[in-house]
Amino acid sequence: MVETLAIVGVGLLGGSIALAARERGLAKRIIGIARQPQSLDIALQRRIIDEGYLQFDDALHHTQYAIVCTPVDQIAPLARELLDRFPDMIVSDVGSTKASIVSAIDHSPALAARFLGGHPLAGSEKSGPEHADASLFQDKLMFLTPSETSKPDVQTRLKLFWEGLGCRVVFMSAVEHDDIMAMTSHLPHLASFALAGTIPAEYLPYSGTGLRSMTRLAGGDPEMWRAIVQHNREAILTGLTAFDGRLKQFHSAVEQSDTDLLLQLFHEGRRTHHALGS
Amino acid sequence: MVETLAIVGVGLLGGSIALAARERGLAKRIIGIARQPQSLDIALQRRIIDEGYLQFDDALHHTQYAIVCTPVDQIAPLARELLDRFPDMIVSDVGSTKASIVSAIDHSPALAARFLGGHPLAGSEKSGPEHADASLFQDKLMFLTPSETSKPDVQTRLKLFWEGLGCRVVFMSAVEHDDIMAMTSHLPHLASFALAGTIPAEYLPYSGTGLRSMTRLAGGDPEMWRAIVQHNREAILTGLTAFDGRLKQFHSAVEQSDTDLLLQLFHEGRRTHHALGS
Repeated sequence: MVETLAIVGVGLLGGSIALAARERGLAKRIIGIARQPQSLDIALQRRIIDEGYLQFDDALHHTQYAIVCTPVDQIAPLARELLDRFPDMIVSDVGSTKASIVSAIDHSPALAARFLGGHPLAGSEKSGPEHADASLFQDKLMFLTPSETSKPDVQTRLKLFWEGLGCRVVFMSAVEHDDIMAMTSHLPHLASFALAGTIPAEYLPYSGTGLRSMTRLAGGDPEMWRAIVQHNREAILTGLTAFDGRLKQFHSAVEQSDTDLLLQLFHEGRRTHHALGS
Repeated sequence: MVETLAIVGVGLLGGSIALAARERGLAKRIIGIARQPQSLDIALQRRIIDEGYLQFDDALHHTQYAIVCTPVDQIAPLARELLDRFPDMIVSDVGSTKASIVSAIDHSPALAARFLGGHPLAGSEKSGPEHADASLFQDKLMFLTPSETSKPDVQTRLKLFWEGLGCRVVFMSAVEHDDIMAMTSHLPHLASFALAGTIPAEYLPYSGTGLRSMTRLAGGDPEMWRAIVQHNREAILTGLTAFDGRLKQFHSAVEQSDTDLLLQLFHEGRRTHHALGS
């Protein structure tokens, strides 16, 4: 239980952390910081936060933890500013990419000791505090990506905090995290956006639940995804190239009516489906 | 209400038609024909069918409708055999492709007058009579694809039958149907199989609901999908080529950090997502 928790960026994730922390008794007082007055209004109205500010305020001085929940391209500068201005604060984040954020903060080892990158594998194609949900993190994976500068007690405290929110915490390096996410999250999102953009609009009335599943992720926020792909460019290009190679195998198998190759490709895909238990 | 309905191929779709027809009082007696004794056993045990046969039997002589619910490559020969042997029977099907089936039957205009191709936009990646569900067709689209030989009263009767099962019936040509399905169904399935086959198995424990959505369709039956792609080869190749072109745009936008193009591609995908109301 901490006295004060700060949430920077009160959207779906930030709002859900606040709701979950309150429901599970992890924080007495929750301060929200947002750029949009409207986000603060909704968050105050839904009792997601106790106080809201449009910029970093002296009220943050007695905050034990601040979690930065903004789009990934804003996380490193905001985290550095918090670490610099509030010398007792432990700062973490929930960005979908980690390596460039962690390395931007590691440039200042004195600040970096109080920072630990994080990424909960939870979310939705929806955004905004109106969709915040106290149960969003229940049984979800939470990645914490310590660097050489991260202090062990910071790691322990944030691990307990996220376990308190219901997560299963996994430690790995920021680079390993980003390589894995490129394949298991970023590539599937890009595939969804690309497939959605391929289907002629006049055919959409003649589609069923299959296309709906495959285009669900394309409801994601374009600005957020623009920032993610720019943060994990190399690994995402590797993923796109691998996917393209496999689609070429499908193209060739269909073109040549290669029954054996078709069956092999379908079985290989199905194996992944079953491994995911979906 | 018909006296006797025959279901050829008692799997997910055939079993669901039988259950729905019984529940809605559309057929007094339902005969199932299946290749696997086990399918008949399950169907009899679940009271999906009243009688079961492993081949076409004289018991089918007083059957008004037979619906062929086998994989697409078996539909045309089975339908022709039924039309030939049982001169009063109206025969339809539920195959995911229509043009090659309809044209194979149209070679015999005398038989084709009693045939009408159909395809309900309903189903699941699951298969088998154990998953049959009387509500599977509720509010789903049902395509009927008349050719020049289809008799108007056959069209009317099958339209009423499928509306009785809960479907919204749409008439279109078999070729138009196949072109549309290549984009709205077959391509999304192939994309799901291809994406599933691209993700390294060791990364799967670190994946969330996004990858699960995107690989749901890859649970489909490989033999069934092999037959579908061979039946709709040209249109599927067109779809794969269009998808590949769009993925190349993503690749180039990511590689060159082309922010404008990235945002445009994400917004175009998102428009489809919203148009589907998903």
